[in-house]
Amino acid sequence: MIELTVSLQKEGRVPLYEQLYAHIRQEIISGAFVFNTRLPSKRQLAAHLACSQNTVLTAYSQLLAEGYITARPKIGYYVNALDNMAQLEKGRAQPQRPTKEPEDCRYDFSHHGVDPIHFPFAAWRKITKDVINEWDEELLKTGHRQGHPDLRAAIATYLYQSRGVVCSPEQIVVSAGTELLLQLLIQLFDENVVYAIENPGYEKLNLIFKSSRASYKTVDLDENGMRPDVLLKSGADIACVTPSHQFPTGRIMPVSRRIQLLNWTRGKEGRYIVEDDYDSEFRYDGRPISSLQGLDGSGKVIYLGAFSKSLTPALRVSYMVLPERLLQSYHEKLNFYMCPVPTVEQKALYRFIQEGHFERHLNKMRMLYKQKRERLVSSIRSLLPNAVIEGASTGLHFVLKIDNGQSEKALIEAAKTLKVRVYGLSQYYFEQAPSMESALLLGFAAIKYDDIYDAVSRLKSAWVR
Amino acid sequence: MIELTVSLQKEGRVPLYEQLYAHIRQEIISGAFVFNTRLPSKRQLAAHLACSQNTVLTAYSQLLAEGYITARPKIGYYVNALDNMAQLEKGRAQPQRPTKEPEDCRYDFSHHGVDPIHFPFAAWRKITKDVINEWDEELLKTGHRQGHPDLRAAIATYLYQSRGVVCSPEQIVVSAGTELLLQLLIQLFDENVVYAIENPGYEKLNLIFKSSRASYKTVDLDENGMRPDVLLKSGADIACVTPSHQFPTGRIMPVSRRIQLLNWTRGKEGRYIVEDDYDSEFRYDGRPISSLQGLDGSGKVIYLGAFSKSLTPALRVSYMVLPERLLQSYHEKLNFYMCPVPTVEQKALYRFIQEGHFERHLNKMRMLYKQKRERLVSSIRSLLPNAVIEGASTGLHFVLKIDNGQSEKALIEAAKTLKVRVYGLSQYYFEQAPSMESALLLGFAAIKYDDIYDAVSRLKSAWVR
Repeated sequence: MIELTVSLQKEGRVPLYEQLYAHIRQEIISGAFVFNTRLPSKRQLAAHLACSQNTVLTAYSQLLAEGYITARPKIGYYVNALDNMAQLEKGRAQPQRPTKEPEDCRYDFSHHGVDPIHFPFAAWRKITKDVINEWDEELLKTGHRQGHPDLRAAIATYLYQSRGVVCSPEQIVVSAGTELLLQLLIQLFDENVVYAIENPGYEKLNLIFKSSRASYKTVDLDENGMRPDVLLKSGADIACVTPSHQFPTGRIMPVSRRIQLLNWTRGKEGRYIVEDDYDSEFRYDGRPISSLQGLDGSGKVIYLGAFSKSLTPALRVSYMVLPERLLQSYHEKLNFYMCPVPTVEQKALYRFIQEGHFERHLNKMRMLYKQKRERLVSSIRSLLPNAVIEGASTGLHFVLKIDNGQSEKALIEAAKTLKVRVYGLSQYYFEQAPSMESALLLGFAAIKYDDIYDAVSRLKSAWVR
Repeated sequence: MIELTVSLQKEGRVPLYEQLYAHIRQEIISGAFVFNTRLPSKRQLAAHLACSQNTVLTAYSQLLAEGYITARPKIGYYVNALDNMAQLEKGRAQPQRPTKEPEDCRYDFSHHGVDPIHFPFAAWRKITKDVINEWDEELLKTGHRQGHPDLRAAIATYLYQSRGVVCSPEQIVVSAGTELLLQLLIQLFDENVVYAIENPGYEKLNLIFKSSRASYKTVDLDENGMRPDVLLKSGADIACVTPSHQFPTGRIMPVSRRIQLLNWTRGKEGRYIVEDDYDSEFRYDGRPISSLQGLDGSGKVIYLGAFSKSLTPALRVSYMVLPERLLQSYHEKLNFYMCPVPTVEQKALYRFIQEGHFERHLNKMRMLYKQKRERLVSSIRSLLPNAVIEGASTGLHFVLKIDNGQSEKALIEAAKTLKVRVYGLSQYYFEQAPSMESALLLGFAAIKYDDIYDAVSRLKSAWVR
């Protein structure tokens, strides 16, 4: 029988049994205690270590449960065979902190983010508090797989009133980000289906299709959006479009083109349109343009929306409206996926909409964003009179075309030297960008109103010699 | 020129321009206003309708933006060609409420859910309030793609201390549910990789692989868990296992089998183990068994964990620990995916762990669940003395084998007539379940302590003649 030479720290924070367990485990792993070694009896070891037999028993039970030792009834405890000890030698992973230096940037025209000042914290805080205060068992259970029924009902009403989307709450699937919705759609549709994406288009779309191993084609745009002739030739089955405010060009798809696309779905069984209505809430003249889904009479449009632009991207809540004809297939194939949004968030968001805060927030933000847009447009008109603005009637970004002989890259670099960050349009082309005048994407949601004129002045200094 | 016969409701809630817009749009859609029809001038129409020119202008702008009409400068507005009006006839979807009747059930031994009474509402409420009170710009931006750095650091520390998982925060990816993590892994690994899943096993696993179009094999278990010989023969590359508390059998994988599996990964390039540690927090005798990841020295184990059992499934927060060797590939391929958990939740959870609430909650629940388990075990021992209990040393469910000649289905049905819901083990076999004695899965997290004896008494009445 072996001798155990462990000194237990009786005053320490680690329980005695755990110290004993760790010691014996280490001896077995290191090979000091070889296969079939008999361990001391509980009584012997307790006496030897001046601890209780219970301590030894607990340590042995743990070693037993983990398989380091076996018990032979009425005989004793023996070290088990572990068939390759080398496996157990491990290196401790070292935390690696990225040492990226923060870029020195004063003004950022990113199209990501929302206005940093006007989020209705007070209302959101109060509602969240209320939801947790009234915390019922619902918040301890997995909720409805498509999202909380109340939230879906509120979204359906909102979509009908503001976007002309015609749907019942049963058609809505709540999720956490457009990526996740697209993944669901890829799993919903057949494996050999081909997707069409706008070129230029949303920067992640091709990545999502690529990493999900789905086939896709890029389809060029004209001034009205995705070209139906190119779409037809591509052989694609599902067309992904942003008709309300094409990303990134900002163009609005007119009704005639919308109808052309809907007619394209009739040409062949299994064709659908995925309508991503990502920032349609912010139209500055007249009503927002109603959705493609609302025009569709044949259940051929899947509508995607999110609260990322209208509230905050940190909330992550997105949703899709499935046509009735896809619902059964969704239930059969994908009903095992849980809604990824925490129940508290879903209930808070429901109340936020229900109590009118969402509508008030949208109206306030529409006004504020309109002011920012007008400030940005007027600053550009006065400081950069030769620049051309496109796609500014709606949404939170537009395209600025600069015809001063400099390349897009040169413009971005020149702006950067004056601490203004702007973004090129060419990066949104999935293939080689066509030769065109240099074009930039200017987002104005996150920049401060009072900074806009100075930011454009810097662009002038950077670009106009 | 056409005549417009719209009567605007000046007292109504709908703005005048919107009424006018809707009227003209309807006339175009219905075909009453045909292609190239010239609309009245602003001045004419304003006079005709006794409204301001601005009202007409806004309505026309909206129609223009949506492409229903075109403007010919200095001439007027004309109806556009819409190439298939039939498309626009749509049926209004009728909400369909499912009319499923609630089942009449008094006691439910589901393995889903957590204890409904002891969630630390007060602490969670206070922390959430604080997080929103101190709401900074972080809560208005998209956060870190792998999850908030503070939360990941807290998880890394927790995992090291309680589960022996060795990792840096950089290796952690926070997500919303095990399904989403598995989807990420399927996209991370090569397309032609084959997965091995335990048989019997987690009911959703095959559905996830199937709907993601990934190949998988089911691998039978012996009393130590997944059989290495069957795994080897299966030709699989990635083995998905639940070593701490096999689902559903409740068996604990001994160290010798763990090492066999780790050695299996060395046999061929590209082999990995996915360790799903779904309810390992609740071990009732001694320390929880340390993880397979902690034994692994070669970076071959991907560790999955969640707060579903330890806090609440309604939170949806899950995470995985990627070995260093997979990190670069993750960054290259999948770094465009955003963490789907709202920032508020991530910050609240971080503080909940950091301030010691999580540990206290775990300790409390371990005690409570232990009491429930003991109550259930002792009730079974006294009321159903011939029944065999397996896998009860850890986790929130165990297996109950009944050898009274009745089939599993008959047992479930008999229990149901006395309003007790129990679940059969055979449904967790992915192929035909082997012929075996009738076995049930009893979860005891959600059932009330005081209900347990009566529930088992009912089972006795249902099963023992």
